[in-house]
Amino acid sequence: MNEHDQIKELAKSSSSRIVLLAIDGLGGLPRPETGKTELEEARTPNLDLIAANSICGLADPIAPGITPGSAPGHLALFGYDPFRFTIGRGVLEALGIGFALREGDVAARGNFCTVDETGLVLDRRAGRISTETCSQLCQLLGAIRLNGAKLFVAPVKEHRFVAVFRGQRLSSQLTDSDPQQVGLPPKPIIPLSAQAKKTASLANEFVAKAKEALVHSEPANMVLLRGFSEHPRFPLFSEIYKLKPAAIAAYPMYRGLAQVVGMEVLETGDAIEDEFDTLIKHYAEYDFFYVHIKQTDSAGEDGDFERKARIIEQVDALLSRLFALEPDVLIIASDHSTPAVLKSHSWHPVPVLLYSKWCRPDAVHEFSERACAAGALGRFPATQIMPLALAHALKLGKFGA
Amino acid sequence: MNEHDQIKELAKSSSSRIVLLAIDGLGGLPRPETGKTELEEARTPNLDLIAANSICGLADPIAPGITPGSAPGHLALFGYDPFRFTIGRGVLEALGIGFALREGDVAARGNFCTVDETGLVLDRRAGRISTETCSQLCQLLGAIRLNGAKLFVAPVKEHRFVAVFRGQRLSSQLTDSDPQQVGLPPKPIIPLSAQAKKTASLANEFVAKAKEALVHSEPANMVLLRGFSEHPRFPLFSEIYKLKPAAIAAYPMYRGLAQVVGMEVLETGDAIEDEFDTLIKHYAEYDFFYVHIKQTDSAGEDGDFERKARIIEQVDALLSRLFALEPDVLIIASDHSTPAVLKSHSWHPVPVLLYSKWCRPDAVHEFSERACAAGALGRFPATQIMPLALAHALKLGKFGA
Repeated sequence: MNEHDQIKELAKSSSSRIVLLAIDGLGGLPRPETGKTELEEARTPNLDLIAANSICGLADPIAPGITPGSAPGHLALFGYDPFRFTIGRGVLEALGIGFALREGDVAARGNFCTVDETGLVLDRRAGRISTETCSQLCQLLGAIRLNGAKLFVAPVKEHRFVAVFRGQRLSSQLTDSDPQQVGLPPKPIIPLSAQAKKTASLANEFVAKAKEALVHSEPANMVLLRGFSEHPRFPLFSEIYKLKPAAIAAYPMYRGLAQVVGMEVLETGDAIEDEFDTLIKHYAEYDFFYVHIKQTDSAGEDGDFERKARIIEQVDALLSRLFALEPDVLIIASDHSTPAVLKSHSWHPVPVLLYSKWCRPDAVHEFSERACAAGALGRFPATQIMPLALAHALKLGKFGA
Repeated sequence: MNEHDQIKELAKSSSSRIVLLAIDGLGGLPRPETGKTELEEARTPNLDLIAANSICGLADPIAPGITPGSAPGHLALFGYDPFRFTIGRGVLEALGIGFALREGDVAARGNFCTVDETGLVLDRRAGRISTETCSQLCQLLGAIRLNGAKLFVAPVKEHRFVAVFRGQRLSSQLTDSDPQQVGLPPKPIIPLSAQAKKTASLANEFVAKAKEALVHSEPANMVLLRGFSEHPRFPLFSEIYKLKPAAIAAYPMYRGLAQVVGMEVLETGDAIEDEFDTLIKHYAEYDFFYVHIKQTDSAGEDGDFERKARIIEQVDALLSRLFALEPDVLIIASDHSTPAVLKSHSWHPVPVLLYSKWCRPDAVHEFSERACAAGALGRFPATQIMPLALAHALKLGKFGA
C-alpha cells in the first residue's frame, strides 16, 4: 500500500476550501551587502501577519541537497513522490510550450543541428539559430507526412523544438538519435520493446524526411531527437484527495503540470493581479486552488535580487485580497529555491506556511527562511504538504480505532 | 531487515529502568479566549523543570496530517509501525471491554438490529437500545451452543456487542454479515480462504440461532456481524527490546493493547493517584513501565478545556513522586492530540519529553506544544521513541565497528 492509497481511504469530500499559493523559486540566499535573503529584505507585513497565525517550516521538495527541476518540485507540492512519478523530457518540453498533448501521444525533444556532407554532426545546436528561424524550420518540418501517424512539430527556443507523434498504439520505448557529441553521425532510433517497433520506424522516417527537407538550410541542416516520452497517467487529484481542483497559472509549463494531475486549468492573464482576479472570480466553483507565481523565479534566474524582493512585496500586497476569501486552509510554499546570488534553481529548502483555523500556531512571527527553520512543521518533505492541508481542512478521517 | 530486527540485534538487558508516561490526548489547540492550549494554560512547574533537563520535540504518531485511533497511536509509542501492525475491529472491541482473548480466538463486532417479517434490515442499530438491554440480550445469546467451537457474547455499549469464537483452527478470513444499509437482508458470512470454511459455518450457525433466540425481542430481533479478526501475534517487548515490561492502565482497551505486545498488566485503581501508587509499589520488579492516563483524552473529547487543563495539573503534581524513583529514562508523551476545541482526536503532533542523565538537554524550558517545536528531537515519527529510550538507558549496543 503506498501513501496515496492511505490518503485515498481517509479523504472525504467537504465544502471547505484549500488554496496553495506556489511562489516559484521563493527561497533565496543572503546577499553579501545586507546578509539578508530576498524574502528577508522585502517588506511583507501580510506574510508576517499570516505566519504569526500559521505553522511554518522548511520543506525539501525532492530530498536534502537535491536541486529540483520545476516539474518534480511541483509534483512534490502536489503530493506525488517525485522519484516515483516522473515525466519524460519530451513531454515536459511539450507541456512547457502549452502543446495540448493527448493520452497515447509520444513526444520528443528536438535540436536543429549541423552535419557535414558525410553526415557527421559538426554542431549539436546549429550555432544556436534564432527562435524565429526555428519557427520557420518547424513549419517546414510540420509539412512532413508520415505513414501511420500524425506529426506535430513546434518551436521551443533557439535550436530547440518538440516533435509529437499521434497515432494508434505508439510507444516511447525508443533510444535517442542524438549522439551527444560531434564527429559522429546521428544514431538510428532503436525500439526497446516489440511494442515500440512501429514508433521507431515512424521516428526514423521523420528524421530521414527532415534531412531531405533541410538539405538547403544552413546551418540547421539536420535534427537530433531525444527524450521520447508519453503523456503520463498519474492518479488524479479527484481520486486521491476527493478534491475538485483548479489551477491558476499564466505559464504553459505549470498549466500542463496541473493538467497532468487532473486540475482544471482556468483562463487567466499574465500579471500577478490577473491571477488573483481569476481566483476571486472562480472561488465558489472549486474546493482546491493552485495559484502559481512565476515572476519570482524569473528574477532569481536573472540574478536580479532587487526585482525578486519587489515581486515578493507585490504578492504580499495582494494577499489581503486572497485572505478576504477566508480560505479554510492557505498554504504558501514554493517548488524550489532560486537564489538571485546563484542565478539558478538550488537545493535549499523552501519556506512554507500553513494557515488554518485548526492549525496550532508556532512561535514564528515572520515569513522568512530563517524564521521558518524554527517552525512547528520542522524540516520536512514537501510531499507532506497535501496531507497536512487536507487534515487542516477537516477532510481526512481517523486512521484505525 | 526491518526496524525491529535492527533493534533486536543491538538491545541488551541491564538494570536501568524506563518509564513511559502516556498522557492520552495530551496535545491540544489554543482556545480563542486566551490563545493558549490546555497544556500551555495549565500550571505545570514539574513538567517545566523536567523539560529544562530533557530533550523535547513534536512526534507524529502515524504520519503528518493523519489522525490516529487509540490503537495505532499506542502501537507507534511502543515502537510498532502502525501501518504494518494493525489490529482488527473485532479484536479491538474485545480488548476495549477487557475480554481475555486467547491466541486463535476469532472476534467480531456485533450490532443488535431490527429486521422486518421478511428479514430485511429496518434499523442497523435497533433504535440504540440501552446498554442494560444489550447485556440481557447478550446473556440470551451466550446460551447458544455451536457445533465445534465455544462462543462468548459480551455487551459493549447500547446496541454494540462482541462475539468471540474459540476452537481449533479457526480463521478470521470472513466477510461481514452487515449489509451496511437498511432495506437489505443480512448477508451470509462467506469464507475468504479454504481455512476459513469451518469458521464461516460456525458464524452463520450463530447468526441463525441468534435470530431464533431474538424472535420475540423487539426492536432488537436480529444481529449483524463485522470486522472478524484474530488476536494478533506481534513480536513481544521482551524479544525486541530485551525488556521486562509492565503496564499500568485503568482502562481495558489500553490493558489489552499492552498485553498484545507482551507487557504484564498490573492491577491498579481507576484514579491517577492509584496508577502512581501501583508504579511505586512494583518499581523494583520490572525495567519498563507504561503508565497510561486516560482522563485528559476524555476531557478533550468532552470539549472540556478547563477540566483537561486541571487534569494536566494533577498529573504534574504527582510527577514529584515518580521522579523520586529516579528512573534512568522518563518519557512523557501521548498517543495523539485531543484538542478540547475539536472535541475529538486530531492529527496535530504530540509534545514529547525525554529525560535521562545521558540526554543532551536543549533550550526548551517549558513543556508545551509550542516550546517543544523548538526542541532537539525536532518533529519526528513516534516510532523513534523506543529506540531513543533504550539508548538513553544505555541498553543499545554500537552498530558496526
